[in-house]
Amino acid sequence: MKERILTGDRITGKLHLGHYVGSLKNRVELQTQYDTYLILADVQALTTHFEKPELIKQNLRNVALDYLSAGINPDHATIFIQSLIPEIAELTTYFSMFVTVNSLRHNPTIKAEAAERGFQDMYYGFLGYPVSQAADITFCKATLVPVGEDQVPHIEQTRKIVRRFNQLYKPVFVEPKPLVGDVPRLVGLDGNNKMSKSLGNAIDLDSTPEEVSEKIKKATTDPARIHKTDSGHPEICPVYAYHQVFRKEGSAEIYESCKKGQIGCMECKRKMTQSINDLLEPMRERRIVYQNAPKKVDEILMLGTEKARLVAKETMQEIREAMSMNYFK
Amino acid sequence: MKERILTGDRITGKLHLGHYVGSLKNRVELQTQYDTYLILADVQALTTHFEKPELIKQNLRNVALDYLSAGINPDHATIFIQSLIPEIAELTTYFSMFVTVNSLRHNPTIKAEAAERGFQDMYYGFLGYPVSQAADITFCKATLVPVGEDQVPHIEQTRKIVRRFNQLYKPVFVEPKPLVGDVPRLVGLDGNNKMSKSLGNAIDLDSTPEEVSEKIKKATTDPARIHKTDSGHPEICPVYAYHQVFRKEGSAEIYESCKKGQIGCMECKRKMTQSINDLLEPMRERRIVYQNAPKKVDEILMLGTEKARLVAKETMQEIREAMSMNYFK
Repeated sequence: MKERILTGDRITGKLHLGHYVGSLKNRVELQTQYDTYLILADVQALTTHFEKPELIKQNLRNVALDYLSAGINPDHATIFIQSLIPEIAELTTYFSMFVTVNSLRHNPTIKAEAAERGFQDMYYGFLGYPVSQAADITFCKATLVPVGEDQVPHIEQTRKIVRRFNQLYKPVFVEPKPLVGDVPRLVGLDGNNKMSKSLGNAIDLDSTPEEVSEKIKKATTDPARIHKTDSGHPEICPVYAYHQVFRKEGSAEIYESCKKGQIGCMECKRKMTQSINDLLEPMRERRIVYQNAPKKVDEILMLGTEKARLVAKETMQEIREAMSMNYFK
Repeated sequence: MKERILTGDRITGKLHLGHYVGSLKNRVELQTQYDTYLILADVQALTTHFEKPELIKQNLRNVALDYLSAGINPDHATIFIQSLIPEIAELTTYFSMFVTVNSLRHNPTIKAEAAERGFQDMYYGFLGYPVSQAADITFCKATLVPVGEDQVPHIEQTRKIVRRFNQLYKPVFVEPKPLVGDVPRLVGLDGNNKMSKSLGNAIDLDSTPEEVSEKIKKATTDPARIHKTDSGHPEICPVYAYHQVFRKEGSAEIYESCKKGQIGCMECKRKMTQSINDLLEPMRERRIVYQNAPKKVDEILMLGTEKARLVAKETMQEIREAMSMNYFK
């Protein structure tokens, strides 16, 4: 039996290169080794986007296309829609009975996000994010959750919830482990330390070759470097950062030539554009296939959701049994 | 079309006379006039009893028997089990996206209950009680909620949630109104101002004639009255309070004779025992019938839950439509 992974994305927009190198690439590589459950988290998207439900609807299929284009194979991975698994809401409710408000308030990720969004008062659903995440992971009994190092506290909260549940009722769940990967935070085109849709500094995975070229052309570079012959500071240049990620084998050479004033930004960017387009080209080809078969995509989502639902129902049976809620037995 | 009522009880114990005069009597009277939905709130019982799930299981059928014995007619009223309506958990999740933590913290009922229980830190589920109550009321689109005056703020929170939902998405819900009845808080046998299971000062609805007699015998009376001929203080005597509720027509006479030292506590209590047993006798008869037909009771609960579930599914369809979550249409 393969170990089960739970991973996925809040559906707040299309995916970009930051998502790809941060997690999606990893998922594609792991999908044959692990039993991969990929959640399209539309409900959790509401924690910050409850005023824009159309945006979630619109992006649900975009993200599914991003997955499939990037190489997620529905024969290996189960892609499913969070809101169509009511058992996740039920589990969230049960867990919330024994999780204290303060433990949620002190969750580092909640604290950081609330500060980032300038929340004076928090929405109740936003505060409960870690509880619902525990439900995502446990409903399908995933034992591994691929995360960045900054998200390890979230998994710790899930582990605590699992321990408490098992101790209160019956040992239904296994404590999941974080699978901390080589997941760099990709710098934005504007030099901001995070590529992000909302900051407008991202290259979407569905970009055309021309869009990639345009965006890289406009990318921030070392502002001190006016002429090609000026000595550059690649360590502060986002384009150089991309070389390290997308063109690793040639990046040492770029570093040297930039330092020595032997390569101009134009040429450096041209090489980067080429590398990114080389990466995106096979995705574009797969995307066209799926884009031309919307019914096939719907079928993948429906079948994945159905499969996840069956697992959810089984788990809920065990939960009801453990919690003495199997009233008609 | 009859207006729909939502009412019910958290399943934390058997029902007693306080429940009967406070709400159950009213429900029996209203059940032909209104389309009555009676919720057996096992999930909400967990907000305070998550460590004792067996107690909830054990009392679920007791409360159902209390309802049926008291005269709830399953042909009129729909008795259903909260945890078997997952749509309530889903609705709670959706509502929680736009309800702030502070508005819940400031809810008078939550504040009072938290103070009463000496909570330093609150459980997340406990804090969310008003949100889940809004889900109970709205999933079946009840327009009337019978409550005591102290619970009107709860209904106000539901009305706010309904207004916000309708404004954010589509006008799916109607603002429910509180139906404030003649619902006195029944004094306990020990003179405590509330009859309550946990205070051990209650007469359960399933009491035998002997149990009633025993309990009334031990009930606190005016401590200043030693001899029958002493002038009594009926206004501070719980037994006199019961006369006002259960033997209204004779209560003025009791008041006078007590004041004048013309009736002893023994005789006064004997009359009260008689009145309570007269009230409970038809309940006992009905209880025996249902107790001897456990399959019939299960069937009532299953059919009621099924009916409520159909209503819940319809509402959830509308919700998904309103929130742009009808992905496959």
